[in-house]
Amino acid sequence: MTENLTPSPVRLKAVAGLGQPEPSPELEQLYRGFERELLVPLWTEIGDLMPASPKSKATAHLWRWNRLKELAAQAGRIVPVGRGGERRAIALANPSLGGKPYATPTLWAAIQYLMPGEDAPEHRHTQHAFRFVVEGEGVWTVVNGDPVRMSRGDFLPQAGWNWHAHHNAASEPMAWIDGLDIPFSYYTESQFFEVGRERLAPAEKNTPVRSRSERLWGYPGLRPVSQASVQPATPLLAYRWVDTDRALTEQLALEDEGHAATLSPGHAAVRFTNPTNGADVMPTIRAEMHRIRAGGQTLTKREVGSSVFQVFDGWGTVVVGERTWNVERGDLFVVPSWVPFAVKASASANLDLFRFGDSPIYEALHAHRVMIGD
Amino acid sequence: MTENLTPSPVRLKAVAGLGQPEPSPELEQLYRGFERELLVPLWTEIGDLMPASPKSKATAHLWRWNRLKELAAQAGRIVPVGRGGERRAIALANPSLGGKPYATPTLWAAIQYLMPGEDAPEHRHTQHAFRFVVEGEGVWTVVNGDPVRMSRGDFLPQAGWNWHAHHNAASEPMAWIDGLDIPFSYYTESQFFEVGRERLAPAEKNTPVRSRSERLWGYPGLRPVSQASVQPATPLLAYRWVDTDRALTEQLALEDEGHAATLSPGHAAVRFTNPTNGADVMPTIRAEMHRIRAGGQTLTKREVGSSVFQVFDGWGTVVVGERTWNVERGDLFVVPSWVPFAVKASASANLDLFRFGDSPIYEALHAHRVMIGD
Amino acid sequence: MTENLTPSPVRLKAVAGLGQPEPSPELEQLYRGFERELLVPLWTEIGDLMPASPKSKATAHLWRWNRLKELAAQAGRIVPVGRGGERRAIALANPSLGGKPYATPTLWAAIQYLMPGEDAPEHRHTQHAFRFVVEGEGVWTVVNGDPVRMSRGDFLPQAGWNWHAHHNAASEPMAWIDGLDIPFSYYTESQFFEVGRERLAPAEKNTPVRSRSERLWGYPGLRPVSQASVQPATPLLAYRWVDTDRALTEQLALEDEGHAATLSPGHAAVRFTNPTNGADVMPTIRAEMHRIRAGGQTLTKREVGSSVFQVFDGWGTVVVGERTWNVERGDLFVVPSWVPFAVKASASANLDLFRFGDSPIYEALHAHRVMIGD
Amino acid sequence: MTENLTPSPVRLKAVAGLGQPEPSPELEQLYRGFERELLVPLWTEIGDLMPASPKSKATAHLWRWNRLKELAAQAGRIVPVGRGGERRAIALANPSLGGKPYATPTLWAAIQYLMPGEDAPEHRHTQHAFRFVVEGEGVWTVVNGDPVRMSRGDFLPQAGWNWHAHHNAASEPMAWIDGLDIPFSYYTESQFFEVGRERLAPAEKNTPVRSRSERLWGYPGLRPVSQASVQPATPLLAYRWVDTDRALTEQLALEDEGHAATLSPGHAAVRFTNPTNGADVMPTIRAEMHRIRAGGQTLTKREVGSSVFQVFDGWGTVVVGERTWNVERGDLFVVPSWVPFAVKASASANLDLFRFGDSPIYEALHAHRVMIGD
Repeated sequence: MTENLTPSPVRLKAVAGLGQPEPSPELEQLYRGFERELLVPLWTEIGDLMPASPKSKATAHLWRWNRLKELAAQAGRIVPVGRGGERRAIALANPSLGGKPYATPTLWAAIQYLMPGEDAPEHRHTQHAFRFVVEGEGVWTVVNGDPVRMSRGDFLPQAGWNWHAHHNAASEPMAWIDGLDIPFSYYTESQFFEVGRERLAPAEKNTPVRSRSERLWGYPGLRPVSQASVQPATPLLAYRWVDTDRALTEQLALEDEGHAATLSPGHAAVRFTNPTNGADVMPTIRAEMHRIRAGGQTLTKREVGSSVFQVFDGWGTVVVGERTWNVERGDLFVVPSWVPFAVKASASANLDLFRFGDSPIYEALHAHRVMIGD
Repeated sequence: MTENLTPSPVRLKAVAGLGQPEPSPELEQLYRGFERELLVPLWTEIGDLMPASPKSKATAHLWRWNRLKELAAQAGRIVPVGRGGERRAIALANPSLGGKPYATPTLWAAIQYLMPGEDAPEHRHTQHAFRFVVEGEGVWTVVNGDPVRMSRGDFLPQAGWNWHAHHNAASEPMAWIDGLDIPFSYYTESQFFEVGRERLAPAEKNTPVRSRSERLWGYPGLRPVSQASVQPATPLLAYRWVDTDRALTEQLALEDEGHAATLSPGHAAVRFTNPTNGADVMPTIRAEMHRIRAGGQTLTKREVGSSVFQVFDGWGTVVVGERTWNVERGDLFVVPSWVPFAVKASASANLDLFRFGDSPIYEALHAHRVMIGD
Repeated sequence: MTENLTPSPVRLKAVAGLGQPEPSPELEQLYRGFERELLVPLWTEIGDLMPASPKSKATAHLWRWNRLKELAAQAGRIVPVGRGGERRAIALANPSLGGKPYATPTLWAAIQYLMPGEDAPEHRHTQHAFRFVVEGEGVWTVVNGDPVRMSRGDFLPQAGWNWHAHHNAASEPMAWIDGLDIPFSYYTESQFFEVGRERLAPAEKNTPVRSRSERLWGYPGLRPVSQASVQPATPLLAYRWVDTDRALTEQLALEDEGHAATLSPGHAAVRFTNPTNGADVMPTIRAEMHRIRAGGQTLTKREVGSSVFQVFDGWGTVVVGERTWNVERGDLFVVPSWVPFAVKASASANLDLFRFGDSPIYEALHAHRVMIGD
Repeated sequence: MTENLTPSPVRLKAVAGLGQPEPSPELEQLYRGFERELLVPLWTEIGDLMPASPKSKATAHLWRWNRLKELAAQAGRIVPVGRGGERRAIALANPSLGGKPYATPTLWAAIQYLMPGEDAPEHRHTQHAFRFVVEGEGVWTVVNGDPVRMSRGDFLPQAGWNWHAHHNAASEPMAWIDGLDIPFSYYTESQFFEVGRERLAPAEKNTPVRSRSERLWGYPGLRPVSQASVQPATPLLAYRWVDTDRALTEQLALEDEGHAATLSPGHAAVRFTNPTNGADVMPTIRAEMHRIRAGGQTLTKREVGSSVFQVFDGWGTVVVGERTWNVERGDLFVVPSWVPFAVKASASANLDLFRFGDSPIYEALHAHRVMIGD
């Protein structure tokens, strides 16, 4: 993907207007000199490089879950899973990011698919990852030897540099989505990767209802004293739907009772966090579940950084900048940086939306900005 | 710079080998389906996207100061400075980053040039910036109305979202280098920009030896109690050469006296820091001055993230991966992510190297890695 | 409690030996001069003031729960609860702390007792507090208008400066223990106190199974996005026994399965934490529940700072420095600073111990030290 | 200093009035039961223990420097310095703290005195310390083998657990003040102490103008890259008067020029900070230098926690609660917790005040409160 180019003469000449020098033979000669020396002047580039506010290269786009599943199932039949390819994962490629498998400039989102009895081999990488299950069950993800059940509604973080493999113990194929910071790691050239064992040990193919991580860390506000006190990413490997659902249900109930609990009327939301420090679940990825009450809607929001959403349940209407879609279970869409975003639930059912985004990057670097309202 | 492309069919078909499915009509049909739906499989991309260690798209490259100055002087004669173009700044364009004005994937480095009596108009932006002066004097940078003298050896940080303009009060042109996180801000789509006044007030064209920021903050370990306690970027607008030089001189003297003070034998280094929290001078930029004793050399170092160096004084030999250069005052070169880097000073004089890099990004996100030694 | 004393002449003269000047008329005159000027020399005091390691003024002591309950019940009959006295709380007075109601130099521990139908009036204070319930039920503590059920095994933090009252909705009296940092706040002279309403509103006498705080915050790793991101003390007002018990049970089960989960063999422990930052539940108080397996024992531990323990279940033998006690449900004892401490469970049942201590103070000030082993 | 007392029957019986039960034989019997079981009820103590705002046990008090110096000089003649007594230090004993050598409940302040040629032997302790020099010179404090010159106006921090000794290389005696957190460490029972060598090596009796710590760390905003990145206390062992004076002078000059630089009109102040994190110089001690312009005055301030002040130069009037003093060079006074405090400089000269206090303790524990104005 590396290109060797000198600065494009077309671009240097094309810009005219405010703050640009008059064309002249001397200017032309100067620009040729820049090209020879691998230099580019600011004054021809500043309009693109330093806009008044973020103008995302990414496009707001929607992928339909049914179509993704069909293609994933087709891949399940003809593409094997094994060392080298590593995973049967098929990524969303934002239409204006050059054909790269990037949902947004920083985020990877893919459907992964595992046939009955299949294993995805063990590896580890510094990229942070998670799984989110919009439907189905039967797969266990095995993290450092700890088998973690994956079921509808579960959020399963996979912090960087932990060994992991997947195992489908069921008689049906299973699909889920993977989210990673692959584009950000690729852009910042900070990634490491190692392959692990080809095969899991029999004990790792156990199918316990609760992982060891949940047995250690899965209690509200309780920390095992034996474990390291602060960890940069969450040690809890599964956030179960039963908890998430109950938290959202209670926020709406508290709102009904007159208490402050929701983000705005009819809009409940929980964030998945790292219990060792209360921060986001991983240093580069924010993950949340939102519920918009039937007939309700969110405020319009602009935020620095990008997000990917998947409809978990219900249906509704989504507005992302100039685009408007009717969405239903499993549909995925992206919200680019600083593009206004609002959601309206159908009149007949609550709309549950899973969201992940890159906000922790901006917060860590003091570059986060949010604007609420139209 | 936005492109609208569907995933390239060439790339999807081209990859073969480890972990790839056998070519077949069904596979071909599947891949065509991916293209239609804006999807890309992981298994064809993983080798590029998830390498065992960072493989930088940037190239190690050297720019000669004399050549830069000549072109800048030529620009000084024919390119005016004013609103719209904003600055007479000419950026290093890494030869393998597509002709973009990026020294590395995350960093902007440019020579800026101001003719006698010229002003660069006021603006502000969220991108973090600094000036470093390898030679000359006569320009004052005016930050929020505070005129800051710029002289050889001075490091002048310019944290994001502060108003700033430049004013050449001398009878000679002056050149210096600007460093910014423009590529990172552009990539992460997190930047904001506002134009300010066209002209500075007469009082702002004062030419005090010390800026107000230095008069408030320029004492070792002393904080003005009246000022906000923790600030994400440094409030000190000038780090003067007299201090930097003395600190480096003392490290080598302490080494001579048998005390631990240098990074390795003969290699002294200071980092410019934010006095309100002791961290890097700005959230995305690390800046340091290194001195290698005459005849001495550094250890070989690999580091996640990229750096730009400018020779401040002396001469020596630089090794960056496969490349070796003899360098002298003013020369600029880049060290891409994870490329081994070492420097050797000439036998006759100490070698002083200014460095700036993006390490704070990786440290904030727990993604920093360093490897010392061959 | 304020005393007006000049320095004691006895003390000044009495010390002799290492590092002391020879008695003489001049020395005597000097010491009289010190007294007149309100001065005390270091050299006569250093042995007491700056010992080689902490020598606690507090004594290891045990209070029997049965005796406490009898006296509390007697108080219930003859001492009313109301504005002024505020609470029917009876504090442990460490035998070597001058008769003050201090369990240790920094910690307050008391049995509180509420008769059927009684209310303890609303107030708030900067002292941090909690309730722990070793037996019984029927009382609701009402925090900022949120009624919180109190039942056996529950830990109920009450961070500083929140309004709170208590209400016994049952037909039986109820006793529980209160822990606070009253002695520390008193010593550091940092406390504020305000009285609130005399009577709760009828709605606040509701007796819900779950408080609003639990409905918002009581899910592992889930944060309500609507709430302030970092709070110095926990917003979760109840840590329920069902969770605590399960966490301890699982640690022992994981140990049985061969995994690292316990502090030492047979010794499980959980810490109650603030879900907004993963730190201790309150800035000055650490609270934990420990379970020692039947027949098992802890390692011997010394720690800077002091703790109070209450036996929650089972029985065993406790060694605190020179003291050894057989303990059973409800018994309370103190472990002074740097005194070796170990516990052995009876052969017939697990021993559950609730602990609270002042470790967060030392950790925040970088003064914490722990020594494990004899 | 340990007392063994049962709770005082006088105190238990004496309190009457709001919230107190009616005296009766049953009550008397109950109170006797409490005494036997080492219990104290809250309702008799709450007025003292939980006041509406801090009521300090310490008294505002002034010590005259001339009187201190006379007594110190007398001690210099008859009290030797050596192992066991360790230091010829004479501490301020607040008149209402029971004759203990405590300036305030948390702070130790002493005059230390060293005769020509004398050495104070090496030791280390976890208590944090500093020296401040109101007059004289000639002593070097040797910290971990690094000799640090002490001259008028210098602030010399001595963070816990560093080896240190003192050496008077001059032909005159020298006096200075020591500040430590001895009372806080003693109260919290968190202190450790070790004796070191009886005698310094000849090389450690060097008398360099600048210590090694200053040569490494004594430049504004410059960090030696070779040193540990974050340290809980400052590695800089001397803050020189030339810097402090200049910083204060510039704040007043900036105020004259119309810029925000002072705490309030005519009141300049700098805080001594840890350059590795920008926080207070030591985890438990805040140290500052204040300058009130001739004829000027400070705002009235109340603050949780206590402070000790020494007049460094000039003269003026100090109001601490009900007390008012005219003060001059060297005079020391204490400001107890939450007592209103204001200073007025004489009309003829600026008033320079050195202050140290315990605010970092309260800030670390989220218990800090300040009130400005009458």
